[in-house]
Amino acid sequence: MPPHPIYINGTWRPAASREIFHATNPATGEVLEDAYPVSTWPDLDIALSAAAEAAPQLAQTPPAAIADFLNRYAQRIEACAAELTARAAAETALPLAPRLRDVELPRTTAQLRQAAAAVVEGSWSLPTIDTTHNIRSCLAPLGPVLLMGPNNFPFAYNAISGGDFAAALAVGNPIIAKAHPLQPNTTRLLAEQAVAALAETPLPKSTLQLIYHMSPDTGLRAAADPRLAALGFTGSRRAGLALKAAADQAGKVIYLEMSSLNPVIILPGALRERPEKIADEFADSALAANGQFCTNPGLTLLLAGPETTAFIAAVKTRFQSRTPGTLLSEGVAHGLRASVATLRNAGATLLTPYPPSPAPCVHPNTLLHVTAAQFLAQPDALQTEAFGNASLFVTADSPGQLAEVLAALEGQLTGSIYSSTTGADDGLYIRFAQLLRPKVGRFLNDKMPTGVTVCPAMNHGGPYPATGHPGYSAVGAPGTLRRFAMLQCYDHVRVGRLPAVLTNKNPTGRTWRLIDGTYTLADIPD
Amino acid sequence: MPPHPIYINGTWRPAASREIFHATNPATGEVLEDAYPVSTWPDLDIALSAAAEAAPQLAQTPPAAIADFLNRYAQRIEACAAELTARAAAETALPLAPRLRDVELPRTTAQLRQAAAAVVEGSWSLPTIDTTHNIRSCLAPLGPVLLMGPNNFPFAYNAISGGDFAAALAVGNPIIAKAHPLQPNTTRLLAEQAVAALAETPLPKSTLQLIYHMSPDTGLRAAADPRLAALGFTGSRRAGLALKAAADQAGKVIYLEMSSLNPVIILPGALRERPEKIADEFADSALAANGQFCTNPGLTLLLAGPETTAFIAAVKTRFQSRTPGTLLSEGVAHGLRASVATLRNAGATLLTPYPPSPAPCVHPNTLLHVTAAQFLAQPDALQTEAFGNASLFVTADSPGQLAEVLAALEGQLTGSIYSSTTGADDGLYIRFAQLLRPKVGRFLNDKMPTGVTVCPAMNHGGPYPATGHPGYSAVGAPGTLRRFAMLQCYDHVRVGRLPAVLTNKNPTGRTWRLIDGTYTLADIPD
Repeated sequence: MPPHPIYINGTWRPAASREIFHATNPATGEVLEDAYPVSTWPDLDIALSAAAEAAPQLAQTPPAAIADFLNRYAQRIEACAAELTARAAAETALPLAPRLRDVELPRTTAQLRQAAAAVVEGSWSLPTIDTTHNIRSCLAPLGPVLLMGPNNFPFAYNAISGGDFAAALAVGNPIIAKAHPLQPNTTRLLAEQAVAALAETPLPKSTLQLIYHMSPDTGLRAAADPRLAALGFTGSRRAGLALKAAADQAGKVIYLEMSSLNPVIILPGALRERPEKIADEFADSALAANGQFCTNPGLTLLLAGPETTAFIAAVKTRFQSRTPGTLLSEGVAHGLRASVATLRNAGATLLTPYPPSPAPCVHPNTLLHVTAAQFLAQPDALQTEAFGNASLFVTADSPGQLAEVLAALEGQLTGSIYSSTTGADDGLYIRFAQLLRPKVGRFLNDKMPTGVTVCPAMNHGGPYPATGHPGYSAVGAPGTLRRFAMLQCYDHVRVGRLPAVLTNKNPTGRTWRLIDGTYTLADIPD
Repeated sequence: MPPHPIYINGTWRPAASREIFHATNPATGEVLEDAYPVSTWPDLDIALSAAAEAAPQLAQTPPAAIADFLNRYAQRIEACAAELTARAAAETALPLAPRLRDVELPRTTAQLRQAAAAVVEGSWSLPTIDTTHNIRSCLAPLGPVLLMGPNNFPFAYNAISGGDFAAALAVGNPIIAKAHPLQPNTTRLLAEQAVAALAETPLPKSTLQLIYHMSPDTGLRAAADPRLAALGFTGSRRAGLALKAAADQAGKVIYLEMSSLNPVIILPGALRERPEKIADEFADSALAANGQFCTNPGLTLLLAGPETTAFIAAVKTRFQSRTPGTLLSEGVAHGLRASVATLRNAGATLLTPYPPSPAPCVHPNTLLHVTAAQFLAQPDALQTEAFGNASLFVTADSPGQLAEVLAALEGQLTGSIYSSTTGADDGLYIRFAQLLRPKVGRFLNDKMPTGVTVCPAMNHGGPYPATGHPGYSAVGAPGTLRRFAMLQCYDHVRVGRLPAVLTNKNPTGRTWRLIDGTYTLADIPD
């Protein structure tokens, strides 16, 4: 069977490829039948030119038409939800229900629809007008965007259907999507639905393009190509940093989500007050999806004491009593074993000893421990992300030592503090919150970090190296749309030549605009 | 006389310096008396630690106190305007009036006051609340910011008083300012006023710090230091790119303004309609401040024809009849001569032949010409910025060829199109506007690019390499404040632990917040 075609320049066509690959079912080890091409530079070259050609047309397409595409696509995803979730389950070993069917797929269509609603409403672009000087500005499309998604969300972060796709396309940028090579069957079906939805709209055919795989070198070359305006990447820090270096060097806009330990501080008063509840919450969060969430709580900070000793034992019991599921791939399992080894080599004690893995894609639930003194001696090695069902507990002898650990932490997506409801921890809370707050994008109280609500106030982002820019969230319209936009100012531009959102008449009647210093829905008198 | 002290860690103290420098009056060549130190790493080390210590305090300072500082500082600048403008005139040769006294100094105090007003009003931080999930987010301080200003605006872009200073400090970030070494006397007086204003407020003493000079290596080391959160730089592309590489490598936020040719397209109908008026406007803009504006029109695109031939002759007459002023420094004069030589070596014809320069800091008004065919043969060399009173005209044989020139242009701060008022140029306008618009931050009609109005709708920014991020403006509150901020989300955080702008009560009664999808000034019912 020849490899599946890619979708570039408005058609499904064979890739320029000397190499093919197959997906594997991680639960069974079965190599799946369909063959997919590893694209080489000629494919990217065509895609980049097609995207560059589509960019000005798409930039002038009314938001309603773009929203129409996003809504139609969401509807089509729902219509083939059964097939999509079956394919995704086979490629990822993630549970078909509730995870894929009831959580991730609805989240994905919600993201597409929220992006559609935001772009039609129009306030996302921060339209600003000074009538005295006739100076007007708003955010506007950037140009072709290359997207690469991660292995752990086959729908919600897929480069052809996820949050970056919804945001970058809603703004009016042509998308070149690269599938995650673990999920080509899922991605193909998504792309087929996207192409079908596109055909029902007046959008340019190269509004979206899909390749399945490429070599790192091809990716780095594309990142620096003059026809490309921006990149979005979610995945490993190693790959992300390589892409960032190439994009930075060429002056490209790039948004990355790379890694996070999502530290959780659990204060003694909280542990005395509700130890079992917190142990349940921790185990549920740390082992959800076998720990394969970007917001997985990988690092827990505790003050040594009897309540902490009891808590660690309670978590250990839970880790050992729950059956580990199948990881996303042998690569993930291999990476997890390597990370656990790195942590142990840096002094972490394994609290959950285990025999050799029962299957290539299964790893026992793993709890590790170090003292804060050990952590502070090797803070880099002990911040190694162990992507999967492993978690590190750090116990400090004093609040001051825990503060030192906080000071040594890298930037993170999230950080949580559990504290007593009676005020017993408030002094510690204030001290630690001040240190943790600036290091994390989302700061939580009494709540584990997994579970990212798709809503305008969400921040799925954070300081480097969790992401590449601390000012933006990868989730939550309207803010997430602003990533893939440039600020365009119109100075003394004649009436009739302005974009609709900057004309005297409010184009929708409900677009908030900052006019002469006042936020208003009103028109400007002619 | 020993060198002047620097202001770090809350005191004026001698620099760790083995090297001193003096300012020079470019108009007379006189070396000015005061000596200033070139700081070495120990100064930066102290400043970075002091800034890191001030950061959490400043982050918790109420916006009103920060605004109070900014307003007091603006008032003090006005109170010593005579001395400030005298010093700046001596160090830059810019006219004391109207430029320094009536334009730049009032612009500077306006920027400080507008930043103060924006931070008190609060909407700049895009507060967003979802009550259903109790998720709340807003932009918040990033941490210590290192600022470096350019040579051409001794007040409005000075690292201790300019737009970046106002924006980054208003947000609540401690500032480490590096003076431009051409303007130490001006910068010292500004810093003295800033320090005096600071002492009248409860802000931490290391809210601002000042050094006068440092080696490039020291600057690059500081850029990558873990204590630093962000950088702001305005200046040459060479220095900016070196700083960007260091910051990127370390994952720091950096905003740069580096270079721009500010292309102006003048269409044939406009030239037939009002040739003398446009020639006046062009010469006024191109020769304002001897061409030493970042928005100077350095590249003019024309369609070959009799009206263009006449226009070029009209501009040449103006360039030759006006007396060139003194440039900012011998370095600027040297750079300008080198850039003109680069352009001529790439095929540009000198339309304004001149004898050797009459003085080291004077350069004749210089008009150069190439055909579009020549330009397209060497687009990189012919986009060399000639900072100063030199400008390049490109004449195209056809609209298609002019479109090719547009396609070859780098990112720019501004781009202008002059067209006939009767509609004669409309077809060409539409074609060229579509190509020029995405390449420039501010797009103008029938207007030259110099003159940056300080207002909310201004975009003084643009695609790389004009700046480092196309989404932001260096001028215009509230948007310009958002550069030096991180997105902070609060998920399930208890009442009483939220920042004021995210509490149920609207903290000012006039802060716009996006609550459950609706922009409102209302409180949330408790």
